[in-house]
Amino acid sequence: MTKKNVTYNDIAKYTGFSKTTVSRYFNNPNSVTSENRAIISDALNTLGYRENKVARILASGKTEFIGIIVPNLYLHFYAKMLDTLLSTYEKYGYKFIVFAGNDNKDEERRYLSELLAYKIEGLIMMSHTIPSSELARCGVPVVGIEREDENICSVNTDNYMGAVQATSLLIRGGCDHLIHINSDIDEKTPAYRRIRGFRDTCVSHRKEHDVTLCNFKNSYSEDRAELEQIIDRLEKKYPGRKKGIFTSSDTYANIILNILLRRGKAVPSDYMLIGFDNSPISEEAMIPISTIGQQSDIMADEAMSMLSELMEKGSTPAAPEHRIITPILIRRETTD
Amino acid sequence: MTKKNVTYNDIAKYTGFSKTTVSRYFNNPNSVTSENRAIISDALNTLGYRENKVARILASGKTEFIGIIVPNLYLHFYAKMLDTLLSTYEKYGYKFIVFAGNDNKDEERRYLSELLAYKIEGLIMMSHTIPSSELARCGVPVVGIEREDENICSVNTDNYMGAVQATSLLIRGGCDHLIHINSDIDEKTPAYRRIRGFRDTCVSHRKEHDVTLCNFKNSYSEDRAELEQIIDRLEKKYPGRKKGIFTSSDTYANIILNILLRRGKAVPSDYMLIGFDNSPISEEAMIPISTIGQQSDIMADEAMSMLSELMEKGSTPAAPEHRIITPILIRRETTD
Repeated sequence: MTKKNVTYNDIAKYTGFSKTTVSRYFNNPNSVTSENRAIISDALNTLGYRENKVARILASGKTEFIGIIVPNLYLHFYAKMLDTLLSTYEKYGYKFIVFAGNDNKDEERRYLSELLAYKIEGLIMMSHTIPSSELARCGVPVVGIEREDENICSVNTDNYMGAVQATSLLIRGGCDHLIHINSDIDEKTPAYRRIRGFRDTCVSHRKEHDVTLCNFKNSYSEDRAELEQIIDRLEKKYPGRKKGIFTSSDTYANIILNILLRRGKAVPSDYMLIGFDNSPISEEAMIPISTIGQQSDIMADEAMSMLSELMEKGSTPAAPEHRIITPILIRRETTD
Repeated sequence: MTKKNVTYNDIAKYTGFSKTTVSRYFNNPNSVTSENRAIISDALNTLGYRENKVARILASGKTEFIGIIVPNLYLHFYAKMLDTLLSTYEKYGYKFIVFAGNDNKDEERRYLSELLAYKIEGLIMMSHTIPSSELARCGVPVVGIEREDENICSVNTDNYMGAVQATSLLIRGGCDHLIHINSDIDEKTPAYRRIRGFRDTCVSHRKEHDVTLCNFKNSYSEDRAELEQIIDRLEKKYPGRKKGIFTSSDTYANIILNILLRRGKAVPSDYMLIGFDNSPISEEAMIPISTIGQQSDIMADEAMSMLSELMEKGSTPAAPEHRIITPILIRRETTD
């Protein structure tokens, strides 16, 4: 704890070079001959020099910091995305200051101003509360992932196409009645396109269908109670018909699967079921669940490559760019 | 992007105060009268001043940064722990620079030296590769969570007690043969005490028992194949006996549950089952799984309060302190 820091002065004294040469070694190494670089490098080892990035930042203006705000790490999608973003350190060298937002706009504004005070060079935004019009004015490049992105660059899953794939699979499987279950989300969020994709596919195939929007609580017992009621209604309204359910997340698909199996329903012959996300629960369920897999590794990679381009250019593009990543249909045992 | 930074000079000019007064406003506010503070504060708004923490750090030496290295965010335990740690910002004000380790010692050493170069004030270490003897010499206070902690302060679950609770529940449930399934972990990691707690409880109750150590791959299909073989062996070796299985994680308990149900075994009458972690899968399984819940919110809170004490004192304690958090037995439907 009490270790004394080695200064440029100490290095100059030890090597006999001027402080200017030592400073050039750190800030513009190519201006120092390779012999002298070797001498200084040896001296650093001998003296136990520890790099002070904070001091270097002031000289270069580059913090190499990227801010990340996630809504939470409880949902597997965000944890997976953060995991992949952190691992891009090996490729890009940027360090990440991370905040978890918890859906509170004032808190998230405070996080944002903390991040700006630490001179982040760019921001990756996964939480939903701060509108993109505000983010666009924050003074650093911003890339959004799966959130409202009217005024900022973004990387999103092709949610519409994912819904088309899922719905088509249920139709090909011979379902008589199709149901899409989603949260009551804002029309501006990318995930809303799952609802559109479902509806359009049903309409173009002239299939009878329902869209049910729920007020999910992210609590297993509460969400299960709500889904039990939905299944009750479906059983009453469409007895004896083969039903195909497409849910906006694997978590809900798994709850529905458990409800159906406990009621003695046969999956996939009475009910077909497909989720979204390819999160672990879809594979680990009693009957492995078909799902639409978001390519979160590719999405995180794209977000970083987009952000690093923006940071290098040092200017925001005239119109925000939106990159769309195609999801992957994963067929398991809850569909034919 | 091209916004000019407002300097102390600008503020001095605008308010008519000296630069010294402006500097005192930021670094020692109580030395400025409240009237003058109000004038300066108004000026900051008018001028659009943006705090530059990087510059303040150099003056105060305090970065307010804490480094966190997690092994991954794939396992729910680490994601949950990180989520809780990030949310302590509201209480302590520390910002977190986060790295994900991926079990590679050289990479993690590089992360550590990056963190030190950014003058973190403290480190929370959840990954396993760097020995605590090395961490103890890194120059900043370190708190480990559920990892080898001989030479550093730490917060761990009372793994021994958790295993005693789990094993006792299986014994009270009338199981004839007890099995503990774990990974082949190092004796020095806290989680090893689960094996000891299981063995000691079986011995003191004179119960026949096995400990099976597996080479888990964190891949559902591979781990499932390994667990299928273990169930095959148990069926052959102990036919007709009521078996009680205690696994080191809910993930494995859920795989075993799926295997048993697909083979038509009755849970909990043929097999009782209890996991560890209280991760979402335990609640979301086909039959909700009994488990030992780590109190990750309390653990994260304790780790932060311990670390902030160490950072304030500015010295490492003579002997590392280890705080032990009691886990909670959660009885669901896979035990009586």
